[in-house]
Amino acid sequence: MPTISLKGRNMPESPIRKLAPFADIAKQKGHKVYHLNIGQPDIKTPEVAIEAVKNIDLTIIEYSPSAGYESYRTKLARFYQRQNVNVNSEDIIITTGGSEALLFALATITDPGDEIIIPEPFYANYHAFASSTSATVIPVISSIDDGFALPSIEDVEKLITSKTKAILICNPGNPTGYLYTEAEIKQLASLIKKHDLYLIADEVYREFLYDKDDVHYSVMNLEDVQQNVIMVDSVSKRYSMCGARIGCLVTKNKNVLATVMKFAQARLSPPTIEQIACEAAIDTPQIYFDEVISEYKSRRDTLITELNKIEGVIVTKPKGAFYCIAQLPIDDADKFAQWLLESYDLNGETVMVAPAAGFYSTPGMGLNQVRIAYVLNKQDLISAVNVLKEALLVYNKK
Amino acid sequence: MPTISLKGRNMPESPIRKLAPFADIAKQKGHKVYHLNIGQPDIKTPEVAIEAVKNIDLTIIEYSPSAGYESYRTKLARFYQRQNVNVNSEDIIITTGGSEALLFALATITDPGDEIIIPEPFYANYHAFASSTSATVIPVISSIDDGFALPSIEDVEKLITSKTKAILICNPGNPTGYLYTEAEIKQLASLIKKHDLYLIADEVYREFLYDKDDVHYSVMNLEDVQQNVIMVDSVSKRYSMCGARIGCLVTKNKNVLATVMKFAQARLSPPTIEQIACEAAIDTPQIYFDEVISEYKSRRDTLITELNKIEGVIVTKPKGAFYCIAQLPIDDADKFAQWLLESYDLNGETVMVAPAAGFYSTPGMGLNQVRIAYVLNKQDLISAVNVLKEALLVYNKK
Repeated sequence: MPTISLKGRNMPESPIRKLAPFADIAKQKGHKVYHLNIGQPDIKTPEVAIEAVKNIDLTIIEYSPSAGYESYRTKLARFYQRQNVNVNSEDIIITTGGSEALLFALATITDPGDEIIIPEPFYANYHAFASSTSATVIPVISSIDDGFALPSIEDVEKLITSKTKAILICNPGNPTGYLYTEAEIKQLASLIKKHDLYLIADEVYREFLYDKDDVHYSVMNLEDVQQNVIMVDSVSKRYSMCGARIGCLVTKNKNVLATVMKFAQARLSPPTIEQIACEAAIDTPQIYFDEVISEYKSRRDTLITELNKIEGVIVTKPKGAFYCIAQLPIDDADKFAQWLLESYDLNGETVMVAPAAGFYSTPGMGLNQVRIAYVLNKQDLISAVNVLKEALLVYNKK
Repeated sequence: MPTISLKGRNMPESPIRKLAPFADIAKQKGHKVYHLNIGQPDIKTPEVAIEAVKNIDLTIIEYSPSAGYESYRTKLARFYQRQNVNVNSEDIIITTGGSEALLFALATITDPGDEIIIPEPFYANYHAFASSTSATVIPVISSIDDGFALPSIEDVEKLITSKTKAILICNPGNPTGYLYTEAEIKQLASLIKKHDLYLIADEVYREFLYDKDDVHYSVMNLEDVQQNVIMVDSVSKRYSMCGARIGCLVTKNKNVLATVMKFAQARLSPPTIEQIACEAAIDTPQIYFDEVISEYKSRRDTLITELNKIEGVIVTKPKGAFYCIAQLPIDDADKFAQWLLESYDLNGETVMVAPAAGFYSTPGMGLNQVRIAYVLNKQDLISAVNVLKEALLVYNKK
């Protein structure tokens, strides 16, 4: 039998996937499963995007340009400018999802063995993208005690070696919901300038902020380190178009853009129809976003209020995105999550959570934590947290 | 300024891209440019696929499963079975284009420095995909003298080292149009069995065969080496849906599938709307294909007849796909291709060809060859080859 690559064998499995068979078992028993584990929003895609698909005027579904349609890139640049993000169409390459933008960024700046520093817990697929390109993730631990704020800049700096190529952040964060302050971003800017590293910012949740005075500070607005900055974005969450697989990579660094273009040309183009839908989506009226943000804000407030009613649960209110990390009064969230699906129900209902260990790279971290996505409606969130509360009582009496 | 990765710097540029600015110059002069350089067919996408897009019944463009929609995989398996290709839905992972299937295959079986043997000339992006995953391409030269048939199996075997992981073929071939015989495929099967390697076959042109007695022999029909075989396919050419970016990876090897799934999960899913279009496209009536194949056959016949009228041109009739390699009475096809765009016109018309050196990995090979795509209608092909003929006379008198 021919062999599998080391990078393939070492590639982490999705932290949620191993629970999927147990969710199937629960459903086969007829139990209702509240999915607190996933990031697929139940929010409708804007009508302008759906209408653009329905009214498509093509007889041949042709390749688009490798960098994406010029018309889309131009409109997208204007979208960013309206958000006071300093971007032009020539700084943008359209990618097949934010995923591909991250892959291209890592392939462009790392060779096998090079290191990327990432505050943990982090989006589990960062690990997978680094594995794909044979780079090594160096985690710097952030703590639930301060809501997963940026670790001290000295702690970050200590990890920099001759192999370090970049610091990668997600802002606001999946899975933490933490929103980096302008001061924190500027601390990172000083550090990458001092050591001539890249700062890659995954800003796919940039619009999902829930507190009145909070402002998203994009890395594209950092002056005088623009040659070191790469922004990654996606339409997945903004327009609830996760299945469109349209994202982008943005940078002012022409060498990075030229290299990313080589990777982009090799895969020919991003999807044509979905790009047309995304271009139309830019005309989504503001009321859509107002309603979405207001809905998520009240979901967040409901979730946190309900979680705080459970004895022994530690959680801080997330400032953005639609996740939080909750620490539970248990030893092993993996076992607990499996038990919830396999052996527990409250009047025929149970919950699925994502064990947080999968979002850490340091072994042993996050064992008693879970990631909760608040992509359910409020009534379901209240019911789900109630199931969790009753389940913890039973579990801890076992 | 922070650095670009070695793999990014070494990544080859598209062999056509560097000519693009010269094509723009020709067009700015008001010259008509016959594009013999591209693989974007002018054939219409089947109506069933376009209608499926227009009638889409979604309010949320959600993620599909990472392996693609189960319904699509099931229908696709039946499609292959009707072609006597032995495939079940569980052997198939839907990818974002054939490009991603190749990337996943190479990432799954190679670590940095591992080697892939490829008969050259080959599709230029194979080099790019190998670069992405830090694998090394080892070319084995096929010759225009026998229409780019498989080199002798001894020549292939000589190149096998402890680092060799796979042999990669494109069948029928881009850029050669060569169709491997069953005997050639079985020779490769013996070799991969003997050395326990993978055989990866890019079969995206499987339907594009033009001679009555020719049959496509898929690697999926090789008995007793199924654990070593990976097939790559795409809808791009079959349904003239290049912009859909939907392909697939097919194998009976469960370890390969499980590893590919990890890469597939990391990038979340292939595009949703385009998958729905592809599922509908499977119902395309046979008459569509009959017309397309008949059209390409007559384009091929026209192209080869016209090329053979030019003194000093060597070309063999391709058996499949929609490309041929032509050897021209010149020294440097790169310079000639640039001159055609920059300095030549025949009554305001010129042609763009793809210099073949970009399809070779061995330095110095293919310098007097070009790849010609016959994706223009017959009248345009005749006009284009006439321009080429007159241009060669002028060029060689310079």
